[in-house]
Amino acid sequence: MKIYFSPLACSLATRITLYEAGAEATLIEVDPKTKHTSDGSDFRTVSPLGLVPALVTEDGELLTENAAILQYLTELYPQLQPRASDALERARLKQWLSFIGTELHKALYVPLLDHKAPEVVKQYALQKMESRLTLVAQRLEGREFLLDGFSVADAYMFAVLNWSSVTPVSLAGYRSIVEYQARLRDRASVARAFAEERELYSRELARQRAGG
Amino acid sequence: MKIYFSPLACSLATRITLYEAGAEATLIEVDPKTKHTSDGSDFRTVSPLGLVPALVTEDGELLTENAAILQYLTELYPQLQPRASDALERARLKQWLSFIGTELHKALYVPLLDHKAPEVVKQYALQKMESRLTLVAQRLEGREFLLDGFSVADAYMFAVLNWSSVTPVSLAGYRSIVEYQARLRDRASVARAFAEERELYSRELARQRAGG
Repeated sequence: MKIYFSPLACSLATRITLYEAGAEATLIEVDPKTKHTSDGSDFRTVSPLGLVPALVTEDGELLTENAAILQYLTELYPQLQPRASDALERARLKQWLSFIGTELHKALYVPLLDHKAPEVVKQYALQKMESRLTLVAQRLEGREFLLDGFSVADAYMFAVLNWSSVTPVSLAGYRSIVEYQARLRDRASVARAFAEERELYSRELARQRAGG
Repeated sequence: MKIYFSPLACSLATRITLYEAGAEATLIEVDPKTKHTSDGSDFRTVSPLGLVPALVTEDGELLTENAAILQYLTELYPQLQPRASDALERARLKQWLSFIGTELHKALYVPLLDHKAPEVVKQYALQKMESRLTLVAQRLEGREFLLDGFSVADAYMFAVLNWSSVTPVSLAGYRSIVEYQARLRDRASVARAFAEERELYSRELARQRAGG
Protein backbone atom coordinates (compact mmCIF):
# COMPACT_ATOMS: atom_id res chain seq x y z
CA MET A 1 0.00 0.00 0.00
CA LYS A 2 1.26 3.46 -0.97
CA ILE A 3 0.07 6.64 0.70
CA TYR A 4 0.74 10.00 -0.95
CA PHE A 5 1.02 12.86 1.53
CA SER A 6 2.30 16.40 1.98
CA PRO A 7 3.79 17.41 5.34
CA LEU A 8 1.16 18.75 7.77
CA ALA A 9 -1.60 18.57 5.13
CA CYS A 10 -4.76 16.68 6.06
CA SER A 11 -2.88 13.52 5.09
CA LEU A 12 -1.27 13.83 8.55
CA ALA A 13 -4.44 12.05 9.71
CA THR A 14 -3.52 9.04 7.58
CA ARG A 15 -0.01 8.85 9.07
CA ILE A 16 -1.41 9.08 12.60
CA THR A 17 -3.86 6.30 11.74
CA LEU A 18 -1.13 4.06 10.34
CA TYR A 19 0.95 4.51 13.49
CA GLU A 20 -2.11 3.97 15.68
CA ALA A 21 -2.74 0.66 13.90
CA GLY A 22 0.92 -0.33 13.76
CA ALA A 23 0.39 -0.75 10.02
CA GLU A 24 2.94 -0.65 7.24
CA ALA A 25 2.70 1.54 4.16
CA THR A 26 5.03 3.27 1.72
CA LEU A 27 4.66 6.98 2.36
CA ILE A 28 5.40 9.11 -0.70
CA GLU A 29 5.83 12.86 -0.28
CA VAL A 30 4.13 15.24 -2.70
CA ASP A 31 5.36 18.81 -3.07
CA PRO A 32 2.13 20.81 -2.74
CA LYS A 33 3.32 23.51 -5.19
CA THR A 34 4.94 21.52 -7.99
CA LYS A 35 3.06 18.21 -7.42
CA HIS A 36 6.38 16.38 -7.85
CA THR A 37 6.60 13.25 -5.75
CA SER A 38 9.54 11.96 -3.73
CA ASP A 39 9.67 8.90 -6.02
CA GLY A 40 10.16 11.10 -9.07
CA SER A 41 6.78 11.30 -10.74
CA ASP A 42 4.04 13.88 -11.31
CA PHE A 43 1.34 13.32 -8.70
CA ARG A 44 -1.39 14.43 -11.11
CA THR A 45 -0.72 11.30 -13.15
CA VAL A 46 -1.61 9.32 -10.00
CA SER A 47 -4.60 11.42 -8.90
CA PRO A 48 -5.96 14.03 -11.35
CA LEU A 49 -6.97 16.70 -8.80
CA GLY A 50 -3.56 16.49 -7.16
CA LEU A 51 -5.03 16.35 -3.66
CA VAL A 52 -3.46 14.41 -0.80
CA PRO A 53 -3.99 11.95 0.75
CA ALA A 54 -4.26 9.36 -1.98
CA LEU A 55 -3.93 5.64 -1.39
CA VAL A 56 -2.80 3.11 -3.98
CA THR A 57 -3.37 -0.55 -3.15
CA GLU A 58 -1.03 -3.43 -3.96
CA ASP A 59 -3.27 -4.05 -7.00
CA GLY A 60 -2.71 -0.50 -8.21
CA GLU A 61 -6.21 0.74 -7.33
CA LEU A 62 -6.48 4.42 -6.40
CA LEU A 63 -8.56 5.56 -3.43
CA THR A 64 -8.96 9.29 -2.77
CA GLU A 65 -10.74 11.48 -0.19
CA ASN A 66 -9.50 11.65 3.36
CA ALA A 67 -12.75 10.37 4.92
CA ALA A 68 -12.76 7.33 2.63
CA ILE A 69 -9.09 6.48 3.21
CA LEU A 70 -9.46 6.77 6.98
CA GLN A 71 -12.53 4.50 6.97
CA TYR A 72 -10.80 2.04 4.64
CA LEU A 73 -7.90 1.77 7.09
CA THR A 74 -10.43 1.38 9.93
CA GLU A 75 -11.93 -1.57 8.11
CA LEU A 76 -8.52 -3.14 7.38
CA TYR A 77 -7.27 -2.79 10.96
CA PRO A 78 -9.91 -3.83 13.51
CA GLN A 79 -7.95 -2.25 16.37
CA LEU A 80 -8.97 1.14 14.92
CA GLN A 81 -12.69 0.42 15.08
CA PRO A 82 -14.56 2.56 17.57
CA ARG A 83 -16.73 0.87 20.18
CA ALA A 84 -20.01 1.17 18.32
CA SER A 85 -22.93 -0.90 19.48
CA ASP A 86 -25.42 -0.06 16.74
CA ALA A 87 -25.98 1.63 13.38
CA LEU A 88 -26.41 5.04 14.98
CA GLU A 89 -23.09 4.81 16.81
CA ARG A 90 -21.39 3.75 13.58
CA ALA A 91 -23.02 6.72 11.85
CA ARG A 92 -21.48 9.07 14.44
CA LEU A 93 -18.00 8.39 13.03
CA LYS A 94 -19.28 9.30 9.57
CA GLN A 95 -21.01 12.39 10.99
CA TRP A 96 -17.79 13.71 12.50
CA LEU A 97 -15.66 12.88 9.46
CA SER A 98 -18.19 14.67 7.26
CA PHE A 99 -18.43 17.68 9.59
CA ILE A 100 -14.64 18.04 9.73
CA GLY A 101 -14.31 17.61 5.97
CA THR A 102 -17.09 19.99 4.93
CA GLU A 103 -17.55 22.60 7.67
CA LEU A 104 -13.99 22.90 8.97
CA HIS A 105 -11.55 21.70 6.32
CA LYS A 106 -13.20 22.90 3.08
CA ALA A 107 -15.39 25.81 4.21
CA LEU A 108 -13.14 27.36 6.85
CA TYR A 109 -9.47 26.40 6.60
CA VAL A 110 -8.91 25.88 2.84
CA PRO A 111 -9.61 29.52 1.90
CA LEU A 112 -7.61 30.75 4.92
CA LEU A 113 -4.60 28.61 3.95
CA ASP A 114 -4.71 29.62 0.30
CA HIS A 115 -2.14 32.36 -0.34
CA LYS A 116 -3.91 33.24 -3.58
CA ALA A 117 -7.37 33.66 -1.99
CA PRO A 118 -8.53 37.30 -1.90
CA GLU A 119 -9.12 38.85 1.53
CA VAL A 120 -12.89 38.95 0.86
CA VAL A 121 -12.88 35.17 0.45
CA LYS A 122 -11.04 34.72 3.76
CA GLN A 123 -13.50 37.00 5.55
CA TYR A 124 -16.42 35.08 4.07
CA ALA A 125 -14.96 31.83 5.40
CA LEU A 126 -14.38 33.32 8.85
CA GLN A 127 -18.08 34.19 9.22
CA LYS A 128 -18.80 30.55 10.01
CA MET A 129 -15.89 29.99 12.38
CA GLU A 130 -17.59 30.73 15.68
CA SER A 131 -20.66 28.51 15.20
CA ARG A 132 -18.52 25.59 13.97
CA LEU A 133 -15.93 25.80 16.74
CA THR A 134 -18.66 26.23 19.36
CA LEU A 135 -20.24 22.97 18.17
CA VAL A 136 -16.90 21.16 18.47
CA ALA A 137 -16.20 22.69 21.89
CA GLN A 138 -19.61 21.62 23.19
CA ARG A 139 -19.10 18.07 21.92
CA LEU A 140 -15.73 17.86 23.70
CA GLU A 141 -17.04 19.11 27.07
CA GLY A 142 -16.40 16.24 29.47
CA ARG A 143 -15.20 13.94 26.66
CA GLU A 144 -11.74 12.61 25.92
CA PHE A 145 -12.37 12.07 22.20
CA LEU A 146 -15.07 12.85 19.63
CA LEU A 147 -16.44 9.31 20.00
CA ASP A 148 -16.22 6.80 22.87
CA GLY A 149 -12.55 6.09 22.21
CA PHE A 150 -9.82 7.36 19.92
CA SER A 151 -10.92 7.14 16.30
CA VAL A 152 -9.82 8.33 12.88
CA ALA A 153 -12.11 11.34 13.42
CA ASP A 154 -9.70 12.51 16.12
CA ALA A 155 -6.76 12.02 13.76
CA TYR A 156 -8.52 14.15 11.13
CA MET A 157 -9.57 16.78 13.68
CA PHE A 158 -6.00 17.05 14.96
CA ALA A 159 -4.62 17.60 11.44
CA VAL A 160 -7.20 20.31 10.73
CA LEU A 161 -7.03 22.16 14.07
CA ASN A 162 -3.25 22.29 13.69
CA TRP A 163 -3.70 24.76 10.81
CA SER A 164 -5.09 27.32 13.27
CA SER A 165 -1.52 28.40 14.09
CA VAL A 166 -0.97 29.71 10.54
CA THR A 167 -4.46 31.16 9.99
CA PRO A 168 -6.59 33.78 11.82
CA VAL A 169 -8.46 30.95 13.57
CA SER A 170 -7.96 31.34 17.30
CA LEU A 171 -8.81 28.39 19.52
CA ALA A 172 -7.94 30.28 22.72
CA GLY A 173 -11.57 30.93 23.62
CA TYR A 174 -12.49 27.24 23.36
CA ARG A 175 -11.01 25.60 26.43
CA SER A 176 -12.28 22.08 25.71
CA ILE A 177 -10.72 22.20 22.23
CA VAL A 178 -7.37 23.46 23.51
CA GLU A 179 -7.25 20.69 26.12
CA TYR A 180 -8.28 18.07 23.55
CA GLN A 181 -5.55 19.24 21.18
CA ALA A 182 -2.97 19.00 23.98
CA ARG A 183 -4.23 15.52 24.93
CA LEU A 184 -3.94 14.32 21.34
CA ARG A 185 -0.47 15.84 20.97
CA ASP A 186 0.67 13.64 23.87
CA ARG A 187 -0.69 10.45 22.34
CA ALA A 188 2.13 8.25 21.00
CA SER A 189 0.82 7.88 17.43
CA VAL A 190 0.07 11.58 17.12
CA ALA A 191 3.34 12.72 18.74
CA ARG A 192 5.42 10.57 16.38
CA ALA A 193 3.50 11.53 13.24
CA PHE A 194 3.45 15.22 14.14
CA ALA A 195 7.18 15.36 14.93
CA GLU A 196 8.07 13.64 11.67
CA GLU A 197 5.84 15.85 9.54
CA ARG A 198 7.04 19.04 11.23
CA GLU A 199 10.57 18.08 10.28
CA LEU A 200 9.51 17.30 6.70
CA TYR A 201 7.58 20.57 6.56
CA SER A 202 10.66 22.55 7.61
CA ARG A 203 12.61 20.89 4.81
CA GLU A 204 9.81 21.65 2.33
CA LEU A 205 9.92 25.33 3.30
CA ALA A 206 13.71 25.38 3.01
CA ARG A 207 13.49 23.88 -0.49
CA GLN A 208 10.90 26.46 -1.50
CA ARG A 209 13.06 29.29 -0.16
CA ALA A 210 15.98 27.90 -2.14
CA GLY A 211 13.80 28.10 -5.25
CA GLY A 212 13.10 24.48 -5.91
CA MET B 1 -37.78 8.50 12.57
CA LYS B 2 -38.04 12.20 11.72
CA ILE B 3 -36.16 13.81 8.84
CA TYR B 4 -35.82 17.58 8.67
CA PHE B 5 -35.51 18.92 5.13
CA SER B 6 -35.87 22.03 3.00
CA PRO B 7 -37.27 21.69 -0.52
CA LEU B 8 -34.54 21.02 -3.12
CA ALA B 9 -31.75 21.38 -0.53
CA CYS B 10 -29.25 18.53 -0.24
CA SER B 11 -31.83 16.80 1.94
CA LEU B 12 -33.52 15.88 -1.35
CA ALA B 13 -31.01 12.99 -1.33
CA THR B 14 -32.53 11.68 1.89
CA ARG B 15 -36.05 11.74 0.45
CA ILE B 16 -34.88 9.93 -2.70
CA THR B 17 -33.18 7.35 -0.47
CA LEU B 18 -36.32 6.80 1.63
CA TYR B 19 -38.40 6.25 -1.51
CA GLU B 20 -35.74 3.99 -2.98
CA ALA B 21 -35.88 1.86 0.18
CA GLY B 22 -39.66 2.03 0.51
CA ALA B 23 -39.02 3.29 4.04
CA GLU B 24 -41.27 5.34 6.29
CA ALA B 25 -40.26 8.57 7.99
CA THR B 26 -41.90 11.76 9.18
CA LEU B 27 -40.61 14.51 6.91
CA ILE B 28 -40.56 17.93 8.56
CA GLU B 29 -40.03 21.02 6.41
CA VAL B 30 -37.61 23.71 7.54
CA ASP B 31 -37.86 27.23 6.13
CA PRO B 32 -34.25 27.92 5.11
CA LYS B 33 -34.52 31.62 5.92
CA THR B 34 -36.43 31.69 9.23
CA LYS B 35 -35.51 28.15 10.38
CA HIS B 36 -39.14 27.66 11.40
CA THR B 37 -40.31 24.08 10.99
CA SER B 38 -43.62 22.82 9.63
CA ASP B 39 -44.39 21.34 13.06
CA GLY B 40 -44.08 24.74 14.68
CA SER B 41 -40.66 24.81 16.29
CA ASP B 42 -37.33 26.56 15.77
CA PHE B 43 -35.03 24.17 13.91
CA ARG B 44 -31.96 25.51 15.72
CA THR B 45 -33.30 23.99 18.94
CA VAL B 46 -33.15 20.63 17.13
CA SER B 47 -29.79 21.11 15.38
CA PRO B 48 -27.64 24.11 16.41
CA LEU B 49 -26.15 24.89 12.99
CA GLY B 50 -29.60 24.86 11.40
CA LEU B 51 -28.44 22.71 8.49
CA VAL B 52 -30.63 20.15 6.76
CA PRO B 53 -30.87 17.21 6.57
CA ALA B 54 -31.10 16.23 10.22
CA LEU B 55 -32.43 12.90 11.40
CA VAL B 56 -34.01 12.25 14.80
CA THR B 57 -34.47 8.62 15.81
CA GLU B 58 -37.43 7.18 17.73
CA ASP B 59 -35.22 7.48 20.83
CA GLY B 60 -34.76 11.20 20.21
CA GLU B 61 -31.13 10.93 19.09
CA LEU B 62 -29.96 13.54 16.56
CA LEU B 63 -27.85 12.58 13.56
CA THR B 64 -26.55 15.31 11.26
CA GLU B 65 -24.42 15.50 8.08
CA ASN B 66 -25.82 14.30 4.80
CA ALA B 67 -23.12 11.66 4.23
CA ALA B 68 -23.75 10.17 7.68
CA ILE B 69 -27.54 10.12 7.32
CA LEU B 70 -27.35 8.51 3.87
CA GLN B 71 -24.99 5.80 5.14
CA TYR B 72 -27.13 5.26 8.23
CA LEU B 73 -30.16 4.63 6.01
CA THR B 74 -28.01 2.33 3.86
CA GLU B 75 -27.21 0.30 6.94
CA LEU B 76 -30.86 0.18 8.09
CA TYR B 77 -32.21 -0.87 4.68
CA PRO B 78 -30.09 -3.61 3.10
CA GLN B 79 -31.77 -3.13 -0.29
CA LEU B 80 -29.81 0.15 -0.54
CA GLN B 81 -26.44 -1.49 -0.09
CA PRO B 82 -24.22 -1.33 -3.16
CA ARG B 83 -22.77 -4.54 -4.51
CA ALA B 84 -19.41 -4.27 -2.80
CA SER B 85 -17.21 -7.32 -2.66
CA ASP B 86 -14.41 -5.98 -0.50
CA ALA B 87 -13.21 -3.13 1.72
CA LEU B 88 -12.01 -1.11 -1.26
CA GLU B 89 -15.39 -1.28 -2.98
CA ARG B 90 -17.09 -0.22 0.25
CA ALA B 91 -14.63 2.66 0.50
CA ARG B 92 -15.68 3.84 -2.99
CA LEU B 93 -19.11 4.83 -1.65
CA LYS B 94 -17.41 6.89 1.06
CA GLN B 95 -15.05 8.38 -1.52
CA TRP B 96 -17.91 9.65 -3.69
CA LEU B 97 -19.97 10.90 -0.75
CA SER B 98 -16.92 12.78 0.51
CA PHE B 99 -16.06 14.18 -2.93
CA ILE B 100 -19.62 15.41 -3.48
CA GLY B 101 -19.81 16.89 0.02
CA THR B 102 -16.46 18.65 0.02
CA GLU B 103 -15.51 19.46 -3.59
CA LEU B 104 -18.95 20.04 -5.12
CA HIS B 105 -21.44 20.89 -2.37
CA LYS B 106 -19.33 22.98 0.03
CA ALA B 107 -16.53 24.35 -2.16
CA LEU B 108 -18.47 25.01 -5.38
CA TYR B 109 -22.24 25.27 -4.95
CA VAL B 110 -22.66 26.73 -1.43
CA PRO B 111 -20.99 30.07 -2.26
CA LEU B 112 -22.79 30.21 -5.63
CA LEU B 113 -26.18 29.64 -3.98
CA ASP B 114 -25.58 32.18 -1.20
CA HIS B 115 -27.30 35.46 -2.10
CA LYS B 116 -25.15 37.25 0.47
CA ALA B 117 -21.82 35.97 -0.90
CA PRO B 118 -19.74 38.70 -2.60
CA GLU B 119 -19.01 38.26 -6.31
CA VAL B 120 -15.30 37.68 -5.52
CA VAL B 121 -16.27 34.67 -3.39
CA LYS B 122 -18.36 33.22 -6.21
CA GLN B 123 -15.53 33.69 -8.71
CA TYR B 124 -13.11 32.00 -6.30
CA ALA B 125 -15.45 29.00 -6.04
CA LEU B 126 -15.85 28.80 -9.83
CA GLN B 127 -12.09 28.41 -10.31
CA LYS B 128 -12.38 24.77 -9.29
CA MET B 129 -15.49 23.94 -11.30
CA GLU B 130 -13.88 22.60 -14.45
CA SER B 131 -11.47 20.15 -12.79
CA ARG B 132 -14.20 18.81 -10.48
CA LEU B 133 -16.83 18.35 -13.18
CA THR B 134 -14.26 16.79 -15.51
CA LEU B 135 -13.50 14.18 -12.85
CA VAL B 136 -17.21 13.37 -12.49
CA ALA B 137 -17.72 13.26 -16.26
CA GLN B 138 -14.80 10.86 -16.68
CA ARG B 139 -16.12 8.60 -13.94
CA LEU B 140 -19.53 8.44 -15.63
CA GLU B 141 -18.16 7.60 -19.11
CA GLY B 142 -19.70 4.21 -19.92
CA ARG B 143 -21.26 3.90 -16.46
CA GLU B 144 -24.89 4.02 -15.42
CA PHE B 145 -24.18 5.13 -11.84
CA LEU B 146 -21.20 6.28 -9.75
CA LEU B 147 -20.84 2.76 -8.34
CA ASP B 148 -21.89 -0.65 -9.70
CA GLY B 149 -25.57 0.01 -9.05
CA PHE B 150 -27.72 2.87 -7.80
CA SER B 151 -26.48 4.10 -4.42
CA VAL B 152 -27.00 6.98 -2.03
CA ALA B 153 -24.05 8.66 -3.76
CA ASP B 154 -26.25 9.03 -6.86
CA ALA B 155 -29.05 10.48 -4.74
CA TYR B 156 -26.62 13.05 -3.30
CA MET B 157 -25.09 13.81 -6.71
CA PHE B 158 -28.55 14.37 -8.19
CA ALA B 159 -29.51 16.84 -5.44
CA VAL B 160 -26.27 18.78 -5.90
CA LEU B 161 -26.17 18.84 -9.72
CA ASN B 162 -29.76 20.11 -9.71
CA TRP B 163 -28.51 23.42 -8.29
CA SER B 164 -26.66 24.07 -11.55
CA SER B 165 -29.86 25.53 -13.02
CA VAL B 166 -29.83 28.45 -10.53
CA THR B 167 -26.05 29.02 -10.50
CA PRO B 168 -23.44 29.83 -13.18
CA VAL B 169 -22.47 26.12 -13.30
CA SER B 170 -23.11 24.84 -16.79
CA LEU B 171 -23.19 21.10 -17.32
CA ALA B 172 -23.76 21.43 -21.08
CA GLY B 173 -20.14 20.62 -21.94
CA TYR B 174 -20.21 17.38 -19.94
CA ARG B 175 -22.26 14.93 -21.98
CA SER B 176 -21.91 11.99 -19.61
CA ILE B 177 -23.14 14.10 -16.69
CA VAL B 178 -26.14 15.44 -18.63
CA GLU B 179 -27.12 11.91 -19.65
CA TYR B 180 -26.65 10.63 -16.10
CA GLN B 181 -28.82 13.43 -14.74
CA ALA B 182 -31.57 12.59 -17.26
CA ARG B 183 -31.31 8.88 -16.38
CA LEU B 184 -31.67 9.61 -12.68
CA ARG B 185 -34.60 11.97 -13.30
CA ASP B 186 -36.45 9.05 -14.91
CA ARG B 187 -35.87 6.73 -11.96
CA ALA B 188 -39.07 6.22 -9.95
CA SER B 189 -37.67 7.23 -6.54
CA VAL B 190 -35.97 10.31 -7.95
CA ALA B 191 -38.92 11.37 -10.13
CA ARG B 192 -41.33 11.19 -7.18
CA ALA B 193 -39.02 12.98 -4.72
CA PHE B 194 -38.07 15.66 -7.25
CA ALA B 195 -41.69 16.38 -8.27
CA GLU B 196 -42.76 16.67 -4.63
CA GLU B 197 -39.91 18.96 -3.65
CA ARG B 198 -40.34 21.17 -6.71
CA GLU B 199 -43.95 21.72 -5.65
CA LEU B 200 -42.88 22.47 -2.05
CA TYR B 201 -40.16 24.79 -3.34
CA SER B 202 -42.70 26.76 -5.39
CA ARG B 203 -44.83 27.18 -2.27
CA GLU B 204 -41.77 28.26 -0.26
CA LEU B 205 -40.97 30.94 -2.86
CA ALA B 206 -44.60 32.10 -2.85
CA ARG B 207 -44.54 32.40 0.95
CA GLN B 208 -41.32 34.40 0.77
CA ARG B 209 -42.76 36.72 -1.85
CA ALA B 210 -45.80 37.22 0.37
CA GLY B 211 -43.42 38.30 3.13
CA GLY B 212 -43.50 35.34 5.41
